Amino acid sequence: MTAHFVNDPAALVPEALDGLIGGAGPGRLARLDGYPDIKVVLRADWDRADQGRDRVAVVSGGGAGHEPAHAGFVGPGLLTAAVSGEVFASPSVDAVLAALLAVTGEAGCLLVVKNYTGDRLNFGLAAERARAAGLRVEMVVVGDDIAIPDTPAPRGLAGTLLVHKVAGALAQSGAPLDHVAGAARRVAAGVRSLGISTSGADIPGRRSEQRFVDGSAELGLGIHGEPGVETFALGRDAEIVDRMAAALTDALPDGGDSGAAGGDVVLLLNTFGGLAPLEALVVVCDLLATPLGQRARLLIGPAALMTSMSMRGFSVSALAVDDELARALLANCAAWTAWPGARELGSHDRLRVLPVPTLREAGKVLASEDTAVRAVLTAVTGALIDAEQALNALDAKVGDGDTGSTFAAAARRVLSELDALPLADRSALFARLSELLGSAMGGSSGVLLSILFAAAGSAGSAGSAGDDAPLADALAAGADAVQRHGGAGEGDRTMLDALLPAVRALRDGGAAAAAAAARSGADATGSMEQARAGRAAYVGGQHLRGVVDPGAEAVAIAFTAAATHR
Amino acid sequence: MTAHFVNDPAALVPEALDGLIGGAGPGRLARLDGYPDIKVVLRADWDRADQGRDRVAVVSGGGAGHEPAHAGFVGPGLLTAAVSGEVFASPSVDAVLAALLAVTGEAGCLLVVKNYTGDRLNFGLAAERARAAGLRVEMVVVGDDIAIPDTPAPRGLAGTLLVHKVAGALAQSGAPLDHVAGAARRVAAGVRSLGISTSGADIPGRRSEQRFVDGSAELGLGIHGEPGVETFALGRDAEIVDRMAAALTDALPDGGDSGAAGGDVVLLLNTFGGLAPLEALVVVCDLLATPLGQRARLLIGPAALMTSMSMRGFSVSALAVDDELARALLANCAAWTAWPGARELGSHDRLRVLPVPTLREAGKVLASEDTAVRAVLTAVTGALIDAEQALNALDAKVGDGDTGSTFAAAARRVLSELDALPLADRSALFARLSELLGSAMGGSSGVLLSILFAAAGSAGSAGSAGDDAPLADALAAGADAVQRHGGAGEGDRTMLDALLPAVRALRDGGAAAAAAAARSGADATGSMEQARAGRAAYVGGQHLRGVVDPGAEAVAIAFTAAATHR
Repeated sequence: MTAHFVNDPAALVPEALDGLIGGAGPGRLARLDGYPDIKVVLRADWDRADQGRDRVAVVSGGGAGHEPAHAGFVGPGLLTAAVSGEVFASPSVDAVLAALLAVTGEAGCLLVVKNYTGDRLNFGLAAERARAAGLRVEMVVVGDDIAIPDTPAPRGLAGTLLVHKVAGALAQSGAPLDHVAGAARRVAAGVRSLGISTSGADIPGRRSEQRFVDGSAELGLGIHGEPGVETFALGRDAEIVDRMAAALTDALPDGGDSGAAGGDVVLLLNTFGGLAPLEALVVVCDLLATPLGQRARLLIGPAALMTSMSMRGFSVSALAVDDELARALLANCAAWTAWPGARELGSHDRLRVLPVPTLREAGKVLASEDTAVRAVLTAVTGALIDAEQALNALDAKVGDGDTGSTFAAAARRVLSELDALPLADRSALFARLSELLGSAMGGSSGVLLSILFAAAGSAGSAGSAGDDAPLADALAAGADAVQRHGGAGEGDRTMLDALLPAVRALRDGGAAAAAAAARSGADATGSMEQARAGRAAYVGGQHLRGVVDPGAEAVAIAFTAAATHR
Repeated sequence: MTAHFVNDPAALVPEALDGLIGGAGPGRLARLDGYPDIKVVLRADWDRADQGRDRVAVVSGGGAGHEPAHAGFVGPGLLTAAVSGEVFASPSVDAVLAALLAVTGEAGCLLVVKNYTGDRLNFGLAAERARAAGLRVEMVVVGDDIAIPDTPAPRGLAGTLLVHKVAGALAQSGAPLDHVAGAARRVAAGVRSLGISTSGADIPGRRSEQRFVDGSAELGLGIHGEPGVETFALGRDAEIVDRMAAALTDALPDGGDSGAAGGDVVLLLNTFGGLAPLEALVVVCDLLATPLGQRARLLIGPAALMTSMSMRGFSVSALAVDDELARALLANCAAWTAWPGARELGSHDRLRVLPVPTLREAGKVLASEDTAVRAVLTAVTGALIDAEQALNALDAKVGDGDTGSTFAAAARRVLSELDALPLADRSALFARLSELLGSAMGGSSGVLLSILFAAAGSAGSAGSAGDDAPLADALAAGADAVQRHGGAGEGDRTMLDALLPAVRALRDGGAAAAAAAARSGADATGSMEQARAGRAAYVGGQHLRGVVDPGAEAVAIAFTAAATHR
């Protein structure tokens, strides 16, 4: 049985509603007393003279398991109250009647019901009783599902939310009951929906649905675990979405042609609770590319609005819109509800030019000559190429044996570019070395050395000492960046154990002192039995004992070569 | 392999980002050219003089699969740009650098990075290169995960979003880079998160994670499928949430004590993409009941913010807040982003008195006498009780054989209340009969008859003809309501086939004509081979042939009894 984050399954729905109400913060939501039978969430501000009662109340509800529908949509501009049943079970007549009695004032109430027998009867009886008690109650039933052709009783799906939003916006604006109900009926008559999923609905405390084979999808399934009308192996999303969009277009009254030239439908993309948000965005991409999508004036979602526990699927709802409906769908409503907003679509410039000129600017260099620098670079790269096998052998004892090849590849690349390098401009040279090492060297060490030279280069160019900051300061800034980004420090058995002492020695004692410090630092890594960073962190101390860190060794080789040829 | 709504897995992320950008509508989002290597989403309005460039840019990003993070948070008051990699893979240095170059103006840029080696290095190198190119770039690394004790490199989880929001709000307000970066570092230093899930992350094109046993959960797991630090059979949600809240409290710097007296933390409840919204609300309920929850000043979520494809779990993030942070977290940001808003918590009156007096008012009746009505009721109920076995036998041929018992139970209940009924007030009587039938009869037929009498009662009381509308008109209104709410009509093989002709005949010919019409209508159902409503709709025509509908038969019996004793 699938694991669920619940306590007592019998208290599931009241606890969830308490979470909703408590989490909404003061003054927003309240509930009618009467748990567990009466599960009614209502606007906490509805009794305030400036907020409620003189306006039309909009009430909806149904079985639980579809959250945030319906209680998550209670708030100014949307629902006045929501009546919840247990999971996938209609609320009782008394619960609906209690909601109606609690919120209906002189202006009356619109009751929005999804087209399921239980809901129709229980909400219907409550409406009749409320009328008998003297209340003005209009009821609209939504059956937007197109999955089952020619059914006399199409199911209510996420299209119901469009009815909520339109009715809620008009009611909030002060429209009278007949106007609110008329607009709601117009939406209910015009909206069409179709769902698809690759899993069923897992209900806490019940055995999970096993009818889905890995890789299969059901088209036209309901939101209570009802099987789809067609099962198939899921192919490309674009093909599925094309089919769904075409079926919706065919099912729209008059093909959804509201008389406007294009851009005349609203699309609502509802996820069933368990669809990865990444996939939902692919669905948007494919949906907007369909002929129906091209006609879309408004888009709502993707969002989990009318869910089926955590079903991995979605539904698309379509409705022809005119200006009045569009205004109502775009109207503000309480920002803390689950309503995701409607967005006006249209062609727009979606592409920005890649800042390639600026990228090049950053790396634009003019070759220049400095024989001393050339000598050092030649020596260092040569030494690293010579050390390829030795370093590989060293690395093989604690890693995958490629440190030598990695450094040698970088060295060969630098050598091959030597004549094009700005040897006389240290900042530009370091920036260029950063690029070369970043692209030629690979792996974490490549990025770290690239960081070293990038930071060293900008320390030189941007530092207060101007273009000619001492080499040691530049390298120190580079080493600092390596520690910052790499997360390792001295003593962690990395190349830093040679680099940091070398840079310190360079400042005070010059190149020879730096080489000696690097060598001594590298040697010291042989007695460090605990690597705290890099790949060696996963190697036991007994394997590390006596083995010098190959990265530190490479640094020592480089500093030694540089000192010898300076 | 789990089915996913994708096309070419290699084009997955670009298509998702196109869906995001296209679905956002004109003028909101754009992207840098350079798919598939450069996947950068940025504010489309950032080049407008009144919107961007003179303000600090806030850039974040990382691997895909965590949607809406990060591109879903691009917008005024949040991120200026987001850099996406492939699923669970860091973006390239060039992609990050392109984003930095594209959005960073004189005011500089804050780069927010989750603490993973790949992200640290690639974002770090891009930052160094951008600095080398003369840009002011500050970087903050977020490692909010507390799952692994004493790790030197805690992972970045949903707490990162608090850094985004605070930095985004301050940047939008015009704060300088050092202030924005300082606040971001303060949040990064203070926020702590912990996750739990009952499933792993299913990645399109890869085999799904099989390590979860049905019913088990992993505490302290990562957002890339990394296993949790503890696996156990999932128990009561409240116990789990208590543990998580206690662990977070222990891990908060200074226990999260910001010096304020209580109400001093913000809680963020992030779902991993596949948690049922119903369950998420239970988690809220349990979380707010913990000592940490009691101290919460702000709540963000539950919402899918930093997901792991469609993992069925959640994470809780906690941060001590002062007024500046609270203001930044509450500040407006683009409503079309995925930011769910922060809500101020506090004690509030969450309960509304059930409108029981009004409910009673609706049903309040004074007993009254009318001997003719008493005679009819006695006759009708007696006849239905007498017919119990015959009706059951009839129903057994097409259903579950309980129609007789259902009607008889209702009849007995009405008989037992006879002396308390308002026999002289037809509207009140019908309203009371509606209540009695609704509670005593059960099933759809109970609700439908309850609807019949409720509507008949209010037609009498509210109609223009006043209290004395003809009985036929009242029953016609009731029958109309039954058709409206029940969805069946004449010829559908239901009790309406007797009721509707009887009501018509009653108006013109009186009780005897009504009885005859009911009888003839009931008999006619025996030749209807297709039931279109009710339970018999699922029964084949060959079983229905010659069998009178038991509901219609009951109606005929009732009308016959009424006519005889009038």
